Amino acid sequence: MEPTLQHIRDAAVRIAPFVHRTPVLTCATLNRMTGAQLFFKCENLQKVGAFKMRGASNAIAQLDPKAAVHGVATHSSGNHGAAVALAARLMGIKAHVVMPDNAAAIKKLAVAGYGANITWCEPTIASRDEYLAAVVQRTGATVIHPYNNERIIAGQGTAGLELIEEIEHLDLLLVPVGGGGLISGCALAAKSLNPKIRVIGVEPEGADDARRSLAAGTLVPPMSPVSIADGLLAPLGEKTFAIIRRYVDDIAAVSETAIAHAMRTVWERMKIIIEPSSAVTVAAILEGKVDIPGRRCGIILSGGNVDLDRLPWKQ
Amino acid sequence: MEPTLQHIRDAAVRIAPFVHRTPVLTCATLNRMTGAQLFFKCENLQKVGAFKMRGASNAIAQLDPKAAVHGVATHSSGNHGAAVALAARLMGIKAHVVMPDNAAAIKKLAVAGYGANITWCEPTIASRDEYLAAVVQRTGATVIHPYNNERIIAGQGTAGLELIEEIEHLDLLLVPVGGGGLISGCALAAKSLNPKIRVIGVEPEGADDARRSLAAGTLVPPMSPVSIADGLLAPLGEKTFAIIRRYVDDIAAVSETAIAHAMRTVWERMKIIIEPSSAVTVAAILEGKVDIPGRRCGIILSGGNVDLDRLPWKQ
Repeated sequence: MEPTLQHIRDAAVRIAPFVHRTPVLTCATLNRMTGAQLFFKCENLQKVGAFKMRGASNAIAQLDPKAAVHGVATHSSGNHGAAVALAARLMGIKAHVVMPDNAAAIKKLAVAGYGANITWCEPTIASRDEYLAAVVQRTGATVIHPYNNERIIAGQGTAGLELIEEIEHLDLLLVPVGGGGLISGCALAAKSLNPKIRVIGVEPEGADDARRSLAAGTLVPPMSPVSIADGLLAPLGEKTFAIIRRYVDDIAAVSETAIAHAMRTVWERMKIIIEPSSAVTVAAILEGKVDIPGRRCGIILSGGNVDLDRLPWKQ
Repeated sequence: MEPTLQHIRDAAVRIAPFVHRTPVLTCATLNRMTGAQLFFKCENLQKVGAFKMRGASNAIAQLDPKAAVHGVATHSSGNHGAAVALAARLMGIKAHVVMPDNAAAIKKLAVAGYGANITWCEPTIASRDEYLAAVVQRTGATVIHPYNNERIIAGQGTAGLELIEEIEHLDLLLVPVGGGGLISGCALAAKSLNPKIRVIGVEPEGADDARRSLAAGTLVPPMSPVSIADGLLAPLGEKTFAIIRRYVDDIAAVSETAIAHAMRTVWERMKIIIEPSSAVTVAAILEGKVDIPGRRCGIILSGGNVDLDRLPWKQ
């Protein structure tokens, strides 16, 4: 069943003990550079450094007690894996995470640090799915999909709900698009509270399946997506796409150069660390790809997990 | 006349239109690493990226109108220069900043970007003082000292006031010590509101004049201070030292290695950018130099201005 505003409101109450209420920051310099009033919802300052903690907490908190004793399982080399690991630990539930053995050391450390049981797979979709199936067979764990799941969508939507409730009269909301969990939840919250708000998704040019799917009116799978915004490479799911079709007004796409430049601009001017996947929205406004001058514009900064030894600019 | 809590309260009202009320962040990982409950007052997210905006705004807003028409002047290669430039611009007052011609390009850009009149001097104290005197002679501008000034001290104290009012029952407050403007204002606010709170200053081992001055009971000038925490190289002033003697319980000193490690830890775990001068307090608790396990500990993160091309760790 498709989530509603009420599901998002319920999720906000349910996950409150497990997540931060993240601050909304403003930056006079970026306002001046863009001619708009920008309000940044800082999910990079969320627990595990990403909005993923919201959806994972919402899904795991609703597990049936009989299922919960068998734990939860997921595959992820990124923020969702860390979020499932931490949310499960906070609720006293066992977490199993299938990760490719070539994942970045810092990501391995994060998931292990949150106490998850890690199963190493080869870096292919076939191996990943095979190992996850084996884990589920062995443990009886419940699989928590990273985005194509109503409870995940409702959980991610709480970021948008908090922003819309805190900052009045927004004209636009900009959200990065990967698998679509964040934007579908946030668009649902935003449009339900204010049907006039424009919701714009942004993705890398090298992984623009949402833009093409929206144009085609049907799910277009990505073809070998490539981007430094590694959180945005996943294809849309059927559930997220259905919500995006209804509530998202447009999708913009940005270049790799623009993403790296926007990321550095936010670090320098706002003194916060955002990952490339977070920088796509800022890249879109700095490049003038979204019409914002004179407008009040909410922006979801989705995460801040970056390998500080491998920054996308010359050292 | 020495500032009082009332001066700090008045400053908070006076500067409210010109500064951010910065967020107080927490970090479960750092709590676990230290065994304490830590509350970070994020002045790195302040305008111009540093607490200096508070003192500069408070001093400039109190200028006599007859003096204000001649503008304000200061010498600074760092955050105080940027703060004076921006605060003056926001109040429609001319700012003159004397900077060494070898200052980092990013700092030159910041001060120029805020619209100040820059006078280049040689990188010596004699040249700096000579050029500042010439600017004052020519323009009639009022000199705004970076810390040895009651209005600056009261302005910086508003950071401590906000933290103490927002977070109840703090046992300790940790503050970096450079010239002493921040710690004297914050200690005054904290001890006036809660005489039982312990206020600890932290400085680099290579610039530990505050520790030696407090031990000697008299101002001991620093001898060739050296540290990557370039905001903490200035010697204490008489006015800041008088307040520090009365209200600061202890001064800890930390190594360069510990500063760089603490800085990176905050970037990685909290996803915020702090400069080395901000990292000294975190270094002190990570090294166990302050007794905090089981305590509720406020920490002022003073600034976030860092040259991203010259980070103090291997790239």
